Amino acid sequence: MIIEPIAIFESPLTTKFGIPRQSGIASRLVGRIVLQPAFRQGEGLRGLEDFDYLWLIWGFSENVDAVKHSTVRPPLLGGNERVGVWATRSPFRPNNLGLSSVRILSVDAKAGFINVAGADLMNGTPIFDIKPYLPYADSHPDARGGFTDSHSWQCLAVDMPDSVRKQLPPSDCEALIEILALDPRPQYHDDPLRIYGMQYAGFDVRFRVAGNRLLVIDAKKT
Amino acid sequence: MIIEPIAIFESPLTTKFGIPRQSGIASRLVGRIVLQPAFRQGEGLRGLEDFDYLWLIWGFSENVDAVKHSTVRPPLLGGNERVGVWATRSPFRPNNLGLSSVRILSVDAKAGFINVAGADLMNGTPIFDIKPYLPYADSHPDARGGFTDSHSWQCLAVDMPDSVRKQLPPSDCEALIEILALDPRPQYHDDPLRIYGMQYAGFDVRFRVAGNRLLVIDAKKT
Repeated sequence: MIIEPIAIFESPLTTKFGIPRQSGIASRLVGRIVLQPAFRQGEGLRGLEDFDYLWLIWGFSENVDAVKHSTVRPPLLGGNERVGVWATRSPFRPNNLGLSSVRILSVDAKAGFINVAGADLMNGTPIFDIKPYLPYADSHPDARGGFTDSHSWQCLAVDMPDSVRKQLPPSDCEALIEILALDPRPQYHDDPLRIYGMQYAGFDVRFRVAGNRLLVIDAKKT
Repeated sequence: MIIEPIAIFESPLTTKFGIPRQSGIASRLVGRIVLQPAFRQGEGLRGLEDFDYLWLIWGFSENVDAVKHSTVRPPLLGGNERVGVWATRSPFRPNNLGLSSVRILSVDAKAGFINVAGADLMNGTPIFDIKPYLPYADSHPDARGGFTDSHSWQCLAVDMPDSVRKQLPPSDCEALIEILALDPRPQYHDDPLRIYGMQYAGFDVRFRVAGNRLLVIDAKKT
Protein backbone atom coordinates (compact mmCIF):
# COMPACT_ATOMS: atom_id res chain seq x y z
CA MET A 1 0.00 0.00 0.00
CA ILE A 2 1.29 3.45 -0.87
CA ILE A 3 0.74 6.21 1.69
CA GLU A 4 1.55 9.87 1.27
CA PRO A 5 2.18 12.60 3.85
CA ILE A 6 -0.97 14.58 4.63
CA ALA A 7 0.98 16.93 6.91
CA ILE A 8 4.50 17.80 8.01
CA PHE A 9 5.64 18.38 11.58
CA GLU A 10 7.47 21.54 12.60
CA SER A 11 9.56 21.23 15.75
CA PRO A 12 12.33 23.20 17.42
CA LEU A 13 14.25 19.90 17.38
CA THR A 14 15.86 19.68 13.95
CA THR A 15 17.91 16.51 14.51
CA LYS A 16 17.16 13.17 16.21
CA PHE A 17 19.35 14.14 19.14
CA GLY A 18 17.10 15.35 21.94
CA ILE A 19 13.80 13.94 20.63
CA PRO A 20 11.87 12.67 23.68
CA ARG A 21 11.73 8.88 23.78
CA GLN A 22 7.93 8.84 23.99
CA SER A 23 5.10 11.29 23.38
CA GLY A 24 3.85 13.27 26.37
CA ILE A 25 6.98 13.09 28.49
CA ALA A 26 8.18 16.53 27.34
CA SER A 27 4.90 18.34 27.96
CA ARG A 28 6.34 21.82 27.33
CA LEU A 29 7.80 20.97 23.96
CA VAL A 30 5.61 22.77 21.43
CA GLY A 31 5.38 21.97 17.73
CA ARG A 32 3.08 22.48 14.79
CA ILE A 33 1.29 20.11 12.44
CA VAL A 34 1.05 21.77 9.03
CA LEU A 35 -1.36 20.20 6.55
CA GLN A 36 -0.01 19.69 3.04
CA PRO A 37 -1.36 22.24 0.54
CA ALA A 38 -3.75 19.67 -1.00
CA PHE A 39 -5.53 19.31 2.36
CA ARG A 40 -5.70 22.99 3.32
CA GLN A 41 -8.87 23.57 1.33
CA GLY A 42 -12.14 22.33 2.77
CA GLU A 43 -12.89 21.90 6.41
CA GLY A 44 -10.97 18.81 7.37
CA LEU A 45 -10.09 20.19 10.82
CA ARG A 46 -13.64 21.34 11.71
CA GLY A 47 -14.54 20.10 15.20
CA LEU A 48 -11.00 19.11 16.21
CA GLU A 49 -10.83 22.02 18.68
CA ASP A 50 -13.33 20.16 20.90
CA PHE A 51 -10.79 17.42 21.59
CA ASP A 52 -7.85 17.65 24.04
CA TYR A 53 -5.54 15.17 22.30
CA LEU A 54 -5.00 13.74 18.87
CA TRP A 55 -3.19 10.75 17.42
CA LEU A 56 -0.50 11.11 14.84
CA ILE A 57 0.51 8.21 12.62
CA TRP A 58 3.82 9.25 11.20
CA GLY A 59 6.97 7.98 9.55
CA PHE A 60 10.33 7.23 11.15
CA SER A 61 11.68 8.88 8.05
CA GLU A 62 15.29 8.75 9.27
CA ASN A 63 15.20 4.98 9.75
CA VAL A 64 13.74 3.79 6.45
CA ASP A 65 16.99 2.23 5.29
CA ALA A 66 18.07 0.86 8.68
CA VAL A 67 18.28 -2.89 9.21
CA LYS A 68 15.33 -4.20 11.25
CA HIS A 69 15.64 -7.05 13.75
CA SER A 70 12.92 -9.15 15.35
CA THR A 71 14.14 -8.11 18.80
CA VAL A 72 15.36 -4.72 20.02
CA ARG A 73 17.01 -3.37 23.19
CA PRO A 74 14.74 -0.68 24.67
CA PRO A 75 16.62 2.26 26.24
CA LEU A 76 14.20 2.03 29.19
CA LEU A 77 15.77 -1.36 30.04
CA GLY A 78 19.24 0.16 29.95
CA GLY A 79 19.90 -1.01 26.41
CA ASN A 80 21.11 -4.48 27.35
CA GLU A 81 17.94 -6.60 27.38
CA ARG A 82 16.24 -7.87 24.24
CA VAL A 83 12.47 -7.63 23.73
CA GLY A 84 10.38 -8.53 20.66
CA VAL A 85 9.99 -5.55 18.35
CA TRP A 86 6.16 -5.86 18.47
CA ALA A 87 6.36 -5.54 22.27
CA THR A 88 8.15 -2.17 22.01
CA ARG A 89 7.64 1.24 20.45
CA SER A 90 11.11 1.08 18.93
CA PRO A 91 11.63 3.32 15.89
CA PHE A 92 13.46 0.44 14.19
CA ARG A 93 10.47 -1.59 12.99
CA PRO A 94 9.00 -2.89 9.75
CA ASN A 95 6.98 -0.22 7.90
CA ASN A 96 8.64 2.56 9.96
CA LEU A 97 5.36 3.84 11.42
CA GLY A 98 5.26 5.92 14.59
CA LEU A 99 2.22 6.53 16.81
CA SER A 100 1.95 9.45 19.22
CA SER A 101 -0.78 11.10 21.24
CA VAL A 102 -0.15 14.83 21.49
CA ARG A 103 -2.00 17.58 23.32
CA ILE A 104 -3.89 20.08 21.19
CA LEU A 105 -3.03 23.68 22.05
CA SER A 106 -4.88 25.43 19.24
CA VAL A 107 -6.35 24.69 15.83
CA ASP A 108 -6.33 27.05 12.88
CA ALA A 109 -8.74 25.29 10.55
CA LYS A 110 -8.54 27.98 7.87
CA ALA A 111 -4.75 28.08 7.65
CA GLY A 112 -4.54 24.30 8.07
CA PHE A 113 -2.35 23.94 11.11
CA ILE A 114 -2.54 22.62 14.67
CA ASN A 115 -0.26 23.68 17.52
CA VAL A 116 0.48 20.77 19.84
CA ALA A 117 2.53 19.91 22.92
CA GLY A 118 4.44 16.80 23.88
CA ALA A 119 5.24 15.42 20.44
CA ASP A 120 8.20 13.10 19.94
CA LEU A 121 8.54 14.00 16.26
CA MET A 122 11.56 15.63 14.66
CA ASN A 123 11.22 18.74 12.52
CA GLY A 124 10.17 17.78 9.00
CA THR A 125 8.63 14.43 9.96
CA PRO A 126 5.95 13.23 7.51
CA ILE A 127 2.53 12.62 9.06
CA PHE A 128 0.20 10.09 7.43
CA ASP A 129 -2.89 10.44 9.58
CA ILE A 130 -4.45 12.65 12.25
CA LYS A 131 -7.19 11.16 14.40
CA PRO A 132 -8.99 12.58 17.41
CA TYR A 133 -8.26 10.93 20.77
CA LEU A 134 -11.43 9.21 21.99
CA PRO A 135 -11.16 8.60 25.75
CA TYR A 136 -14.01 6.06 25.71
CA ALA A 137 -12.13 3.84 23.25
CA ASP A 138 -8.47 4.81 23.65
CA SER A 139 -7.97 5.24 27.39
CA HIS A 140 -7.10 2.17 29.47
CA PRO A 141 -5.55 3.69 32.62
CA ASP A 142 -5.35 0.37 34.48
CA ALA A 143 -3.81 -1.64 31.66
CA ARG A 144 -0.60 -3.52 32.36
CA GLY A 145 2.28 -1.88 30.52
CA GLY A 146 4.78 -4.75 30.44
CA PHE A 147 8.38 -3.72 31.10
CA THR A 148 7.36 -0.04 31.22
CA ASP A 149 5.51 -0.68 34.51
CA SER A 150 8.67 -1.56 36.42
CA HIS A 151 11.11 0.86 34.80
CA SER A 152 11.02 4.62 34.52
CA TRP A 153 13.24 7.24 32.93
CA GLN A 154 16.02 8.51 35.17
CA CYS A 155 15.84 12.27 35.01
CA LEU A 156 18.78 14.65 35.35
CA ALA A 157 18.98 17.86 37.33
CA VAL A 158 19.68 20.64 34.84
CA ASP A 159 21.91 23.59 35.71
CA MET A 160 21.38 26.44 33.28
CA PRO A 161 23.50 29.49 34.15
CA ASP A 162 21.90 32.93 33.88
CA SER A 163 24.29 33.76 31.07
CA VAL A 164 22.65 31.03 29.00
CA ARG A 165 19.09 31.83 30.10
CA LYS A 166 19.51 35.35 28.82
CA GLN A 167 20.16 34.00 25.32
CA LEU A 168 16.84 32.17 25.09
CA PRO A 169 13.19 33.26 25.05
CA PRO A 170 11.62 32.16 28.40
CA SER A 171 9.24 29.56 26.89
CA ASP A 172 12.06 27.96 24.90
CA CYS A 173 14.13 27.96 28.05
CA GLU A 174 11.57 25.93 30.03
CA ALA A 175 11.03 23.46 27.19
CA LEU A 176 14.76 23.04 26.70
CA ILE A 177 15.34 22.32 30.39
CA GLU A 178 12.60 19.70 30.27
CA ILE A 179 14.19 17.99 27.26
CA LEU A 180 17.68 18.06 28.78
CA ALA A 181 16.32 16.63 32.06
CA LEU A 182 15.19 13.57 30.04
CA ASP A 183 18.86 12.86 29.29
CA PRO A 184 19.27 12.94 25.52
CA ARG A 185 22.62 11.13 25.62
CA PRO A 186 22.94 7.77 23.90
CA GLN A 187 22.86 4.76 26.22
CA TYR A 188 26.11 3.79 27.96
CA HIS A 189 27.64 7.23 27.67
CA ASP A 190 29.17 8.26 30.96
CA ASP A 191 32.00 10.68 30.34
CA PRO A 192 31.80 13.83 32.48
CA LEU A 193 34.31 15.62 30.24
CA ARG A 194 32.49 14.95 26.99
CA ILE A 195 30.72 17.95 25.49
CA TYR A 196 27.44 17.26 23.72
CA GLY A 197 25.84 19.50 21.14
CA MET A 198 22.11 19.71 20.45
CA GLN A 199 20.14 21.83 17.99
CA TYR A 200 17.12 23.51 19.53
CA ALA A 201 14.97 26.29 18.06
CA GLY A 202 17.83 27.74 16.05
CA PHE A 203 20.30 27.48 18.91
CA ASP A 204 23.36 25.31 19.16
CA VAL A 205 23.16 24.11 22.77
CA ARG A 206 26.24 22.58 24.39
CA PHE A 207 26.26 20.66 27.68
CA ARG A 208 28.12 18.20 29.89
CA VAL A 209 26.77 15.53 32.25
CA ALA A 210 28.41 14.42 35.49
CA GLY A 211 26.48 11.85 37.49
CA ASN A 212 22.88 12.99 37.65
CA ARG A 213 23.64 16.65 36.93
CA LEU A 214 23.60 18.27 33.51
CA LEU A 215 25.39 21.58 33.03
CA VAL A 216 24.48 23.75 30.07
CA ILE A 217 27.68 25.35 28.79
CA ASP A 218 26.23 27.70 26.20
CA ALA A 219 23.47 28.27 23.66
CA LYS A 220 24.43 30.12 20.51
CA LYS A 221 22.26 31.22 17.61
CA THR A 222 23.16 29.13 14.57
CA MET B 1 6.03 5.51 1.32
CA ILE B 2 5.25 1.88 0.63
CA ILE B 3 3.98 -0.22 3.54
CA GLU B 4 3.30 -3.93 3.51
CA PRO B 5 1.09 -6.08 5.74
CA ILE B 6 3.03 -7.63 8.61
CA ALA B 7 -0.03 -9.58 9.76
CA ILE B 8 -3.59 -10.45 8.73
CA PHE B 9 -6.63 -10.32 10.98
CA GLU B 10 -8.94 -13.29 11.40
CA SER B 11 -12.45 -12.47 12.56
CA PRO B 12 -15.82 -14.23 12.65
CA LEU B 13 -17.09 -11.15 10.79
CA THR B 14 -16.37 -11.78 7.13
CA THR B 15 -18.12 -8.71 5.68
CA LYS B 16 -18.27 -5.05 6.74
CA PHE B 17 -21.84 -5.52 7.95
CA GLY B 18 -21.76 -5.95 11.72
CA ILE B 19 -18.23 -4.62 12.33
CA PRO B 20 -18.35 -2.58 15.57
CA ARG B 21 -18.04 1.14 14.92
CA GLN B 22 -15.10 1.48 17.31
CA SER B 23 -12.62 -0.83 19.01
CA GLY B 24 -13.52 -2.04 22.49
CA ILE B 25 -17.28 -1.62 22.29
CA ALA B 26 -17.81 -5.31 21.42
CA SER B 27 -15.67 -6.70 24.21
CA ARG B 28 -16.68 -10.34 23.62
CA LEU B 29 -15.82 -10.32 19.95
CA VAL B 30 -12.72 -12.47 19.64
CA GLY B 31 -10.31 -12.47 16.71
CA ARG B 32 -6.76 -13.42 15.87
CA ILE B 33 -3.76 -11.50 14.58
CA VAL B 34 -1.68 -13.83 12.42
CA LEU B 35 1.83 -12.67 11.54
CA GLN B 36 2.84 -13.01 7.91
CA PRO B 37 5.22 -15.93 7.30
CA ALA B 38 8.24 -13.61 6.95
CA PHE B 39 7.73 -12.42 10.56
CA ARG B 40 7.05 -15.78 12.20
CA GLN B 41 10.72 -16.55 12.60
CA GLY B 42 12.59 -14.78 15.35
CA GLU B 43 11.11 -13.56 18.57
CA GLY B 44 9.21 -10.46 17.54
CA LEU B 45 6.38 -11.12 20.02
CA ARG B 46 8.63 -11.78 23.05
CA GLY B 47 7.38 -9.79 26.04
CA LEU B 48 4.01 -8.84 24.54
CA GLU B 49 2.22 -11.17 26.98
CA ASP B 50 3.06 -8.71 29.79
CA PHE B 51 0.80 -6.06 28.25
CA ASP B 52 -3.00 -5.98 28.48
CA TYR B 53 -3.67 -4.09 25.25
CA LEU B 54 -2.00 -3.48 21.94
CA TRP B 55 -2.41 -1.01 19.11
CA LEU B 56 -3.07 -2.09 15.59
CA ILE B 57 -2.39 0.19 12.64
CA TRP B 58 -4.31 -1.36 9.79
CA GLY B 59 -5.78 -0.71 6.38
CA PHE B 60 -9.37 0.13 5.53
CA SER B 61 -8.77 -2.24 2.65
CA GLU B 62 -12.38 -2.10 1.43
CA ASN B 63 -12.32 1.68 1.07
CA VAL B 64 -9.12 2.24 -0.88
CA ASP B 65 -10.95 3.27 -4.03
CA ALA B 66 -13.71 5.26 -2.33
CA VAL B 67 -13.92 9.02 -2.86
CA LYS B 68 -12.66 10.92 0.21
CA HIS B 69 -14.18 14.22 1.36
CA SER B 70 -12.76 16.81 3.76
CA THR B 71 -15.85 16.44 5.97
CA VAL B 72 -17.78 13.31 6.92
CA ARG B 73 -21.06 12.55 8.72
CA PRO B 74 -20.30 10.42 11.80
CA PRO B 75 -22.95 7.76 12.55
CA LEU B 76 -22.71 8.79 16.22
CA LEU B 77 -24.22 12.17 15.24
CA GLY B 78 -27.08 10.43 13.45
CA GLY B 79 -25.45 10.75 10.07
CA ASN B 80 -26.75 14.24 9.33
CA GLU B 81 -24.07 16.54 10.75
CA ARG B 82 -20.75 17.22 9.03
CA VAL B 83 -17.43 17.14 10.90
CA GLY B 84 -13.89 17.52 9.52
CA VAL B 85 -12.42 14.16 8.59
CA TRP B 86 -9.39 14.75 10.87
CA ALA B 87 -11.80 15.23 13.79
CA THR B 88 -13.32 11.77 13.25
CA ARG B 89 -12.22 8.15 13.07
CA SER B 90 -14.12 7.73 9.80
CA PRO B 91 -12.92 4.86 7.60
CA PHE B 92 -13.18 7.17 4.59
CA ARG B 93 -9.93 9.11 4.96
CA PRO B 94 -6.76 9.79 3.02
CA ASN B 95 -4.23 6.93 3.35
CA ASN B 96 -6.97 4.54 4.58
CA LEU B 97 -5.27 3.85 7.92
CA GLY B 98 -7.20 2.51 10.90
CA LEU B 99 -6.10 2.60 14.54
CA SER B 100 -7.50 0.29 17.21
CA SER B 101 -6.61 -0.69 20.74
CA VAL B 102 -7.53 -4.31 21.35
CA ARG B 103 -7.31 -6.46 24.47
CA ILE B 104 -4.70 -9.22 24.46
CA LEU B 105 -6.17 -12.61 25.40
CA SER B 106 -3.14 -14.78 24.65
CA VAL B 107 0.08 -14.69 22.70
CA ASP B 108 1.62 -17.65 20.88
CA ALA B 109 5.06 -16.24 20.11
CA LYS B 110 6.29 -19.46 18.47
CA ALA B 111 3.36 -19.87 16.09
CA GLY B 112 3.21 -16.12 15.49
CA PHE B 113 -0.31 -15.26 16.51
CA ILE B 114 -2.16 -13.20 19.12
CA ASN B 115 -5.74 -13.78 20.23
CA VAL B 116 -7.49 -10.51 20.98
CA ALA B 117 -10.89 -9.16 22.01
CA GLY B 118 -12.79 -6.06 20.96
CA ALA B 119 -11.30 -5.50 17.51
CA ASP B 120 -13.25 -3.55 14.89
CA LEU B 121 -11.41 -5.23 12.00
CA MET B 122 -13.01 -7.38 9.33
CA ASN B 123 -11.71 -10.85 8.53
CA GLY B 124 -8.73 -10.59 6.19
CA THR B 125 -7.82 -7.02 7.13
CA PRO B 126 -4.14 -6.20 6.52
CA ILE B 127 -2.23 -5.02 9.61
CA PHE B 128 0.77 -2.74 9.16
CA ASP B 129 1.98 -2.39 12.73
CA ILE B 130 1.52 -3.86 16.19
CA LYS B 131 2.57 -1.76 19.18
CA PRO B 132 2.16 -2.37 22.90
CA TYR B 133 -0.29 -0.10 24.73
CA LEU B 134 1.68 2.06 27.17
CA PRO B 135 -0.69 3.45 29.82
CA TYR B 136 1.82 6.11 30.91
CA ALA B 137 1.88 7.62 27.42
CA ASP B 138 -1.38 6.50 25.79
CA SER B 139 -4.00 6.85 28.50
CA HIS B 140 -5.71 10.22 28.96
CA PRO B 141 -8.89 9.32 30.83
CA ASP B 142 -9.92 12.93 31.46
CA ALA B 143 -9.37 14.18 27.92
CA ARG B 144 -12.25 15.93 26.18
CA GLY B 145 -13.60 13.73 23.41
CA GLY B 146 -15.39 16.33 21.26
CA PHE B 147 -18.73 15.20 19.89
CA THR B 148 -18.24 11.72 21.37
CA ASP B 149 -18.64 13.19 24.89
CA SER B 150 -22.24 14.23 24.34
CA HIS B 151 -23.43 11.35 22.16
CA SER B 152 -23.47 7.63 22.79
CA TRP B 153 -24.51 4.59 20.82
CA GLN B 154 -28.16 3.64 21.21
CA CYS B 155 -28.19 -0.05 21.99
CA LEU B 156 -30.94 -2.49 21.05
CA ALA B 157 -32.49 -5.21 23.18
CA VAL B 158 -31.80 -8.50 21.40
CA ASP B 159 -34.33 -11.35 21.41
CA MET B 160 -32.68 -14.60 20.43
CA PRO B 161 -35.12 -17.52 20.51
CA ASP B 162 -33.92 -20.81 22.00
CA SER B 163 -34.28 -22.40 18.58
CA VAL B 164 -31.52 -20.08 17.33
CA ARG B 165 -29.36 -20.36 20.45
CA LYS B 166 -29.19 -24.11 19.98
CA GLN B 167 -27.58 -23.59 16.57
CA LEU B 168 -24.63 -21.63 17.94
CA PRO B 169 -21.72 -22.42 20.27
CA PRO B 170 -22.35 -20.53 23.58
CA SER B 171 -19.36 -18.16 23.24
CA ASP B 172 -20.37 -17.24 19.68
CA CYS B 173 -23.87 -16.69 20.92
CA GLU B 174 -22.81 -14.11 23.53
CA ALA B 175 -20.52 -12.28 21.11
CA LEU B 176 -23.22 -12.24 18.44
CA ILE B 177 -25.80 -10.79 20.83
CA GLU B 178 -23.33 -8.07 21.80
CA ILE B 179 -22.73 -7.16 18.15
CA LEU B 180 -26.43 -7.14 17.29
CA ALA B 181 -27.15 -4.95 20.34
CA LEU B 182 -24.84 -2.33 18.79
CA ASP B 183 -27.31 -2.07 15.89
CA PRO B 184 -25.44 -2.97 12.73
CA ARG B 185 -28.07 -1.44 10.44
CA PRO B 186 -27.07 1.46 8.20
CA GLN B 187 -28.16 4.90 9.44
CA TYR B 188 -31.74 5.99 8.69
CA HIS B 189 -33.05 2.48 8.29
CA ASP B 190 -36.30 2.06 10.19
CA ASP B 191 -38.40 -0.61 8.55
CA PRO B 192 -39.70 -3.21 11.02
CA LEU B 193 -40.54 -5.61 8.18
CA ARG B 194 -37.12 -5.54 6.56
CA ILE B 195 -35.04 -8.66 7.06
CA TYR B 196 -31.29 -8.13 7.45
CA GLY B 197 -28.65 -10.77 6.85
CA MET B 198 -25.25 -10.86 8.54
CA GLN B 199 -22.36 -13.30 8.22
CA TYR B 200 -20.94 -14.40 11.56
CA ALA B 201 -18.56 -17.30 12.28
CA GLY B 202 -19.80 -19.34 9.34
CA PHE B 203 -23.45 -18.64 10.08
CA ASP B 204 -25.90 -16.66 8.00
CA VAL B 205 -27.77 -14.71 10.67
CA ARG B 206 -31.10 -13.08 9.81
CA PHE B 207 -32.89 -10.51 11.96
CA ARG B 208 -35.52 -7.77 12.06
CA VAL B 209 -35.63 -4.58 14.14
CA ALA B 210 -38.76 -2.90 15.46
CA GLY B 211 -38.22 0.17 17.62
CA ASN B 212 -35.47 -0.67 20.09
CA ARG B 213 -35.91 -4.45 19.87
CA LEU B 214 -34.00 -6.74 17.56
CA LEU B 215 -35.42 -10.20 16.85
CA VAL B 216 -33.08 -12.88 15.52
CA ILE B 217 -35.04 -14.93 12.98
CA ASP B 218 -32.54 -17.69 12.34
CA ALA B 219 -28.85 -18.60 12.10
CA LYS B 220 -27.93 -21.15 9.46
CA LYS B 221 -24.54 -22.68 8.70
CA THR B 222 -23.36 -21.35 5.38
